[in-house]
Amino acid sequence: MPRAVFKELNRGRNSGRSGILNTRRGKVLTPFFMPVATRGAVKGLNPGQVKETGAQVLLSNTYHLHIQPGEKTVKKLGGLHKFGGWEGPILTDSGGFQVFSLAKVRKITEEGVIFKNLASGREVLITPEKSMRIQLDLGSDIIMAFDDLTGLAERERHRTKEAVERTHRWLERCIAEFNHLTSKLKEAEKPLLFGIAQGGLDKRLRRQSLEFIQSTPVSGVAIGGLAVGESRADMYKMLEFLAPMYDASRPRYLMGVGEPADMRFSIEHGIDMFDCVLPTRNGRHGNVWVTGDKKLNLSNGKFSSDKNPIDKKCDCYTCKSGFSRGFLRHLFKVEDPLAGSLASIHNLRYLNRLSESYRL
Amino acid sequence: MPRAVFKELNRGRNSGRSGILNTRRGKVLTPFFMPVATRGAVKGLNPGQVKETGAQVLLSNTYHLHIQPGEKTVKKLGGLHKFGGWEGPILTDSGGFQVFSLAKVRKITEEGVIFKNLASGREVLITPEKSMRIQLDLGSDIIMAFDDLTGLAERERHRTKEAVERTHRWLERCIAEFNHLTSKLKEAEKPLLFGIAQGGLDKRLRRQSLEFIQSTPVSGVAIGGLAVGESRADMYKMLEFLAPMYDASRPRYLMGVGEPADMRFSIEHGIDMFDCVLPTRNGRHGNVWVTGDKKLNLSNGKFSSDKNPIDKKCDCYTCKSGFSRGFLRHLFKVEDPLAGSLASIHNLRYLNRLSESYRL
Repeated sequence: MPRAVFKELNRGRNSGRSGILNTRRGKVLTPFFMPVATRGAVKGLNPGQVKETGAQVLLSNTYHLHIQPGEKTVKKLGGLHKFGGWEGPILTDSGGFQVFSLAKVRKITEEGVIFKNLASGREVLITPEKSMRIQLDLGSDIIMAFDDLTGLAERERHRTKEAVERTHRWLERCIAEFNHLTSKLKEAEKPLLFGIAQGGLDKRLRRQSLEFIQSTPVSGVAIGGLAVGESRADMYKMLEFLAPMYDASRPRYLMGVGEPADMRFSIEHGIDMFDCVLPTRNGRHGNVWVTGDKKLNLSNGKFSSDKNPIDKKCDCYTCKSGFSRGFLRHLFKVEDPLAGSLASIHNLRYLNRLSESYRL
Repeated sequence: MPRAVFKELNRGRNSGRSGILNTRRGKVLTPFFMPVATRGAVKGLNPGQVKETGAQVLLSNTYHLHIQPGEKTVKKLGGLHKFGGWEGPILTDSGGFQVFSLAKVRKITEEGVIFKNLASGREVLITPEKSMRIQLDLGSDIIMAFDDLTGLAERERHRTKEAVERTHRWLERCIAEFNHLTSKLKEAEKPLLFGIAQGGLDKRLRRQSLEFIQSTPVSGVAIGGLAVGESRADMYKMLEFLAPMYDASRPRYLMGVGEPADMRFSIEHGIDMFDCVLPTRNGRHGNVWVTGDKKLNLSNGKFSSDKNPIDKKCDCYTCKSGFSRGFLRHLFKVEDPLAGSLASIHNLRYLNRLSESYRL
């Protein structure tokens, strides 16, 4: 059994709950959203600005950091926290998502996945063991198992069962390597290891995968392979199906979800943790959320003379400082990187405030 | 005579001095450096970050703001201060520098200058009167006269005398229009108007121009047409020549200078105010100054594993926060806009600290 890392504080609507996640870098209130710092930094924002949005945990990408600057360099520079100046916990993905997102340039074997790095032409092999080593070198506080993630395309569907089974075998290898590499650490110094349940849109496989993950001693359970292109209805059906099956004692992390409506539905169906590039990527393109989960595009000319902040009800730095939609529209028009930073701050605060509203 | 806008506090080395400049938005300590917020914002930095570097006054560009978003839009949005969120004084240039920098697309007449806006194909006429109106619409606190600035190229030299004389005639038109447009304002609410002395590298014309500017009731004297491509020795010779001729009672502004060594020489030869795009433009390209006015390029691979901050002796946000050269090199490598912001902050602090060292 895992050490007690999660404490439930309250039950909310449907299967919703709030609680506390214990990491080696302190306690984190759930539910929470993790801004994505792909390469160790949230694009265009300094760590103080990210923290001010209410973020508690950052997510960084193992594959990207392995390619540049390399985990050994990050380690030399003091680990991810010292590197990017973020003092709170950091979760790293395992590289497993790149099996899906870089599908055109990889080859899967039982040993692991060979990626072709288009920039350098170099082939990069990631195995479950190597993913554990990289994440530990990076200094991650929440380490994700290396999984085999299939897409929804017709040609991928036949792979779902195979991928689930491989994900389970790889999880066992991840656990063994993680235990080996952390054996000398005191209990309080150990990062957490999360398993990832797969199964696509197949309920039987999903149940089987979740049950398998929960039969292992991992500290948390992630739902992978959703929000990868399926319909919202399909995703919601699966979340409803899974909701009654989660262990109470483990945090549940829905990977890659960050649309406000999806977060609300997911939280009300037992999810505690989220990450997504949407708030920052959308922000850099001028797309912002406003009260009611509506969207505005700030680069639209109709905002040229608009004196209002993005959202009068918002308490983010951008809105509180009184920057007008007209000013932001101007910044997008002249391509000042400040535009993306101010909009990213707003969007991150939006999702963090949404998360906070469930911490009752 | 102008109202008393400048008070000398101390004399420094050679003709150097420190003092206080009184603007309608409060007192400013001299000497000082103005970060360039071309289109109302310092690229990639929010106003709080700019202020934290020790900046007191921002410079914005009339021509650029006239083109986008237009001074009427800025006015509708509450003026430049409300627009960009900067509470301190703002100086606007007059568009005169664009007579030089956009030389290929303009035509000078006695009436004014016609620019061809390459983006829209539209022709834009700027006259001395129009420059005053635009700057007042923008809400500038320090307004620059519209001048005729010649370059150093052989084919421009014959224009120097003509341009100086036109600059003087235009100054009289600027003063008349400025007085007309501000006649209803109380004395304490009026922005300041600065004249610009021209004359290229011709001492006789320079003396004549400075004497003419100082015979008018402008609140400050700017030296234009230097730092436009001449040798450092030529610029220094001219600054030495002009040093004994300045009125004590008016602030002196050397336009477009921002190399640390040039600022030191200029301050020691009577200059109080500076502006330049160098700290921010260089910063966005990874070039930073370190103690001793030396330069580093942070995008150089040799900094990949360098744990040191940019400059151990620096008290800027970037250095104090402990961001390593290795991390900054990484950010430049992956083209994160945070890279340029952190380097810009460092460079601005460098020039502001340099200025502060003369405020004894």
